[in-house]
Amino acid sequence: MKRLLITGAAGSMGMAMRQRLGHLAETIRVSDITPLTAIAPNEEPVSCDLMDADGVMRMVEGCDGILHFGGIPSENTFDSILEANIRGLYNLYEAARKHGKPRILFASSNHTVGFYRQDQLISVDQPTKPDGLYGVSKCFGEALAQMYFHKFGQETAIVRIGACWPKPTTVRMLAIWLSFDDMASLTERVFKAPYLGCPTIWGVSDNQTKWWDNSASAYLGWKPKDNSETYRAELERSPGIPDKDSSHAKWQGGGFVDEPIYIEPPRSPIR
Amino acid sequence: MKRLLITGAAGSMGMAMRQRLGHLAETIRVSDITPLTAIAPNEEPVSCDLMDADGVMRMVEGCDGILHFGGIPSENTFDSILEANIRGLYNLYEAARKHGKPRILFASSNHTVGFYRQDQLISVDQPTKPDGLYGVSKCFGEALAQMYFHKFGQETAIVRIGACWPKPTTVRMLAIWLSFDDMASLTERVFKAPYLGCPTIWGVSDNQTKWWDNSASAYLGWKPKDNSETYRAELERSPGIPDKDSSHAKWQGGGFVDEPIYIEPPRSPIR
Amino acid sequence: MKRLLITGAAGSMGMAMRQRLGHLAETIRVSDITPLTAIAPNEEPVSCDLMDADGVMRMVEGCDGILHFGGIPSENTFDSILEANIRGLYNLYEAARKHGKPRILFASSNHTVGFYRQDQLISVDQPTKPDGLYGVSKCFGEALAQMYFHKFGQETAIVRIGACWPKPTTVRMLAIWLSFDDMASLTERVFKAPYLGCPTIWGVSDNQTKWWDNSASAYLGWKPKDNSETYRAELERSPGIPDKDSSHAKWQGGGFVDEPIYIEPPRSPIR
Amino acid sequence: MKRLLITGAAGSMGMAMRQRLGHLAETIRVSDITPLTAIAPNEEPVSCDLMDADGVMRMVEGCDGILHFGGIPSENTFDSILEANIRGLYNLYEAARKHGKPRILFASSNHTVGFYRQDQLISVDQPTKPDGLYGVSKCFGEALAQMYFHKFGQETAIVRIGACWPKPTTVRMLAIWLSFDDMASLTERVFKAPYLGCPTIWGVSDNQTKWWDNSASAYLGWKPKDNSETYRAELERSPGIPDKDSSHAKWQGGGFVDEPIYIEPPRSPIR
Amino acid sequence: MKRLLITGAAGSMGMAMRQRLGHLAETIRVSDITPLTAIAPNEEPVSCDLMDADGVMRMVEGCDGILHFGGIPSENTFDSILEANIRGLYNLYEAARKHGKPRILFASSNHTVGFYRQDQLISVDQPTKPDGLYGVSKCFGEALAQMYFHKFGQETAIVRIGACWPKPTTVRMLAIWLSFDDMASLTERVFKAPYLGCPTIWGVSDNQTKWWDNSASAYLGWKPKDNSETYRAELERSPGIPDKDSSHAKWQGGGFVDEPIYIEPPRSPIR
Amino acid sequence: MKRLLITGAAGSMGMAMRQRLGHLAETIRVSDITPLTAIAPNEEPVSCDLMDADGVMRMVEGCDGILHFGGIPSENTFDSILEANIRGLYNLYEAARKHGKPRILFASSNHTVGFYRQDQLISVDQPTKPDGLYGVSKCFGEALAQMYFHKFGQETAIVRIGACWPKPTTVRMLAIWLSFDDMASLTERVFKAPYLGCPTIWGVSDNQTKWWDNSASAYLGWKPKDNSETYRAELERSPGIPDKDSSHAKWQGGGFVDEPIYIEPPRSPIR
Repeated sequence: MKRLLITGAAGSMGMAMRQRLGHLAETIRVSDITPLTAIAPNEEPVSCDLMDADGVMRMVEGCDGILHFGGIPSENTFDSILEANIRGLYNLYEAARKHGKPRILFASSNHTVGFYRQDQLISVDQPTKPDGLYGVSKCFGEALAQMYFHKFGQETAIVRIGACWPKPTTVRMLAIWLSFDDMASLTERVFKAPYLGCPTIWGVSDNQTKWWDNSASAYLGWKPKDNSETYRAELERSPGIPDKDSSHAKWQGGGFVDEPIYIEPPRSPIR
Repeated sequence: MKRLLITGAAGSMGMAMRQRLGHLAETIRVSDITPLTAIAPNEEPVSCDLMDADGVMRMVEGCDGILHFGGIPSENTFDSILEANIRGLYNLYEAARKHGKPRILFASSNHTVGFYRQDQLISVDQPTKPDGLYGVSKCFGEALAQMYFHKFGQETAIVRIGACWPKPTTVRMLAIWLSFDDMASLTERVFKAPYLGCPTIWGVSDNQTKWWDNSASAYLGWKPKDNSETYRAELERSPGIPDKDSSHAKWQGGGFVDEPIYIEPPRSPIR
Repeated sequence: MKRLLITGAAGSMGMAMRQRLGHLAETIRVSDITPLTAIAPNEEPVSCDLMDADGVMRMVEGCDGILHFGGIPSENTFDSILEANIRGLYNLYEAARKHGKPRILFASSNHTVGFYRQDQLISVDQPTKPDGLYGVSKCFGEALAQMYFHKFGQETAIVRIGACWPKPTTVRMLAIWLSFDDMASLTERVFKAPYLGCPTIWGVSDNQTKWWDNSASAYLGWKPKDNSETYRAELERSPGIPDKDSSHAKWQGGGFVDEPIYIEPPRSPIR
Repeated sequence: MKRLLITGAAGSMGMAMRQRLGHLAETIRVSDITPLTAIAPNEEPVSCDLMDADGVMRMVEGCDGILHFGGIPSENTFDSILEANIRGLYNLYEAARKHGKPRILFASSNHTVGFYRQDQLISVDQPTKPDGLYGVSKCFGEALAQMYFHKFGQETAIVRIGACWPKPTTVRMLAIWLSFDDMASLTERVFKAPYLGCPTIWGVSDNQTKWWDNSASAYLGWKPKDNSETYRAELERSPGIPDKDSSHAKWQGGGFVDEPIYIEPPRSPIR
Repeated sequence: MKRLLITGAAGSMGMAMRQRLGHLAETIRVSDITPLTAIAPNEEPVSCDLMDADGVMRMVEGCDGILHFGGIPSENTFDSILEANIRGLYNLYEAARKHGKPRILFASSNHTVGFYRQDQLISVDQPTKPDGLYGVSKCFGEALAQMYFHKFGQETAIVRIGACWPKPTTVRMLAIWLSFDDMASLTERVFKAPYLGCPTIWGVSDNQTKWWDNSASAYLGWKPKDNSETYRAELERSPGIPDKDSSHAKWQGGGFVDEPIYIEPPRSPIR
Repeated sequence: MKRLLITGAAGSMGMAMRQRLGHLAETIRVSDITPLTAIAPNEEPVSCDLMDADGVMRMVEGCDGILHFGGIPSENTFDSILEANIRGLYNLYEAARKHGKPRILFASSNHTVGFYRQDQLISVDQPTKPDGLYGVSKCFGEALAQMYFHKFGQETAIVRIGACWPKPTTVRMLAIWLSFDDMASLTERVFKAPYLGCPTIWGVSDNQTKWWDNSASAYLGWKPKDNSETYRAELERSPGIPDKDSSHAKWQGGGFVDEPIYIEPPRSPIR
């Protein structure tokens, strides 16, 4: 590629991908609403608020690939989510449609299916069961991507990210952990595949504990290599073993299912 | 019921239901953003803009059932749809949650699945394939309803309405026509069933031509009685027979799949 | 047939079938552990305790069809159920195996699947979810029948009876009512079909409210004619409308799911 | 239509359709290898051997619809089947492809699935299990039709005809009977539907005994009206009740499964 | 765990697990109806007949986990199976219910599905097809476990054990062999998982020849490590290769499908 | 085996298998219509035209296994395909039926399903969608094999070969490559399995990119070892990356879907 856009580039996933995927394009255009640091030589920083339709239009112009991590990453007030994850996403797709339809990797979330139980193995074709307003906004995003694909031929990889962290830190993450390396190899396949279409993909490493069946996207040839199993002993020893009746042990969405509707932004992050 | 709220009560479906369902509650609170006419003795008119959170709160208070037809009924600009169908629906659910969780019948649409072909028989469990921003907004609404059900126990009947008109007027409507009488009998079942849950229901009469399998909601005991077949000869004779390669003959969403993204509101209605 | 055996012939279903099915065989051998009354001219009464293997052997000899209603019909102590429904059924199948393998209609129960929710449409191929010891004993019976079929070619119609009563008397029965006439027509088809095999059949009338999909046994050509709908208005008006969170509104097994494990036989019948 | 071609027009189905479908086109071109009789005023007789590619080309020219009953209708020698049902069908499709791709109704057969048991309810999507060379030739025909559809857009209705006779004459026919009237109404729908595609349809009346699920073609709006049930009493009384272990009672293909590979043409018809 | 109960502790599986799982609890209570030998320092022997309800009650008291291997392990007389596998299991579940509902691993069997063919890949959700009275008693056990789970929240891992032997000794065992080490690792996962529920699990090693799909229990994170493939050459060379039409080559239950109903206990073990 | 017949033995797959499978039988009878070279000591060359029924009869006599690669391997004129792949295959099955029903491995093709998209994961139970006359002839062959199995007990392994080449040479082959070694190990399993039946098997190596689900034949214990992934970098670098809208990137059948109906044999091979 000539130019790959990474939105949300100042966040932890954005940072991790910038470190691993600099070779994917001649130029990496990195964008965030917060200040960007550690700019690499082939990086091109752009400050952009997703709610600003014109700004998004300029940000997308000239790119032939988009890695979209921008937006609100967790439960929050309706207004915040509406602006960043709903209006912001619409702005992005309109900009893509007008600028040559660069392929998009859209970071969706396991919270689109948070109300499935942990003893259910689900495929991407089953109905969504979001666990909060954040999850609902990701359902909106998936529907929007599907519509732009069928109507305009805009290709998107909808990646329902489990927990993309340096390592799993809770028992629940044994099932949903996605290593940075596996996320990077997935991104490579998404942008290199001759045909992408609009698949929904579980963004999860090759963990031994498994809730999600990824066979529908086997045509892409992505094969995650990491396995949370190496962390199991440590996590099952720790005091953090959830009670069998708690949301952490019962629902795929974990603690998100207990979150309220926020009137004020939440003070501390949710697990 | 003591008081049933009908939103969008000035529209054609609203009017038709008011004529048929006056007996369902002691008081029918009728609401619209446009002026209401032909107020029946047990009707209680309320003017309300769905974007006004406080107004919606007042509108919902005291109701033990909601028939939600309000919002933008067709393809339109993103801003219009965002305000009426996304923010407006959130306002309604928040009001319901705070006022005793009255049962809701949410008018969703066949445009959530407009990109299935007409030769596919689909069930409510298959993935959505919306055909425009309107359809995407209904996917948002369905996800929101599911979330409020799983998280708060708020019951909703998600009704994917085909074409609720006095009679079918196109060949495509032979498959998707929902008579006013069948819509009324469905509404009765929704509000009378001891347990509702959060089913998705195809809002369609007992037409001989069939695209949708409603067996998943057979527990409600709704059985539509009308059949578009009586109109077939007339419609297949008319000059309006669609070409086999046109969207009207190919896609479940019909002409909606050809609609553009609107920058200005559309001038004339879509079929 | 020359001789049809009806066990449990003194019970309400037994009585109702004797009145309707006298023409099915030259002789109807009627059997029960309690005294039999109203003996018709072509009826041949036999007193038999299902726990008595020799008695069961004699009872079955000479019959070319068995309508098995005998056994404990509801939740009870483990010992009672063990003897009547487990040992008793084994005795019956051994007797059938030794006496020419007459076709059997085995009265199983909806309580084999009582822990499915009422908003689930299930087929006979889905796993059982019994709601008590009675239901577990019927699961045993179904497994026994399957084994005798595959191993010895013994044909059985496993009929999961809903509620076979003169008319529905609760809201839940709107979904599970089986009229006596429909039970009789089913019995006719079972004994007249050239090939039976070992199907599992939902014993339910053509009710508008529907939890069970009987398409797997459509090859038998049975079509129930009655519909509980005529009783709906009366039942939904009565004070007996169950709360949406009660077992009566939530589980297919209704009140059975709340029954304890009995140490002493229950005093009053369960609904 | 201007001109509808009926091949095999001298056979019993051909005759029955000519009597019922004269109104479908201005001219009915009727064709057979055997002499045609009872020519109606708007019929245009053509003598044609399906193995003669040039003759087939002329026969098809000028037609805008084809009802293809021609070919060998039952088990026979490989050579006969090869020429009439394999080469002959290829000739027909090549002629259609060169002459405007008139819509085709292809008479396939239940013998494509003759090795399913009678207690299985099957859909058109399940794998074929032919019961003889005749059935294999129909599998070839279905594959050819699918290929011409996907590759060239040639529309075909693949109709797996059960037993199209004036009335059912065996117990097995209670499940597979297709009345002439229902075949005629199906033909009407096939030629009048705005979009046909390439569906596989069970050609069977609305019989109470049912082996085949036709829901996949519900979009065509065909609804058979006749029911073999009226003939049941007579057929179940007759001496022809098959033994439960005979092919007539066990396999969907009935007696065909017992037929040999013919070296000489069979002397008498198969049931 | 404080105390883990192992029933059937004198049998071969019991012995093998005692050697491997001593670390799972502070105390291992080992129980059998036959004398126990080789008692380890942290083992607590208990003699108990499963038919003795009071004895079972005492045996279970104080345990926070149960590994239930007790009962009749093969085809036998109905009375023996009834007492040990039906009454005995009821006694165990009642004792568990009264003593804090310790998690149970119930040793079910592949003979619950012995009448599936060897060329069928089956999941745990398909209907049971037991191959004898032993298999029927295991179907009872599975139904009982499901009922105690749904009704009382008693968690059980239902493990359908293939052939748990030191190594595979027949060609059929290439598909169903479960190594002692894999059984031990499964037991660990069952007792360590934060949430268990009531899954049915195929107890089988990671053999290359495969009849059973275990994906439904992938949430437990169990991954067997052994593979029967290392024994293939030896077994396929031996004179024991079964004829393709024998039960050993055809049915999943192997030789069990040929066993009679026993009136006297069988003299020699069944394979 | 005493004698294994390999047809098409002069072709590239035939040569590769002869080099790898000489140990499978005492004598390898090698047959082709073109001259055979490099005859190994235990090889027995036979010249045979598949259209010659008597010759095929002699070729098959005395063999206890058949590896059938003979016939037209690609798109061609209808007459060529008819004679070699339809009449020729019938000749082979008749010969097998008369000479002891030796087990057959029939080389079918991915072109039976060429009109599935590359982003679809399909199983062998889904309907065929052939991409040309060659694919249609293979559908005929599969139907013929199924019929001979059900009717006469003739066992066949239907192997839908992807691309059996020394190494993958196009991007599409990353998904469908079958190494010679994996084809050889599959052949071994097919002839050594105690029971074969009539499975359909995807003939494909253990490639990371995957379109086909082979779980239905897991009972055979075949596990391919090669993986096209080692060739990916090279192929994705080459100028041959297909455009996302080309048949090579869209359809499983690749370039075959664009081939015409041949009137004259094609000049150059198809990819």
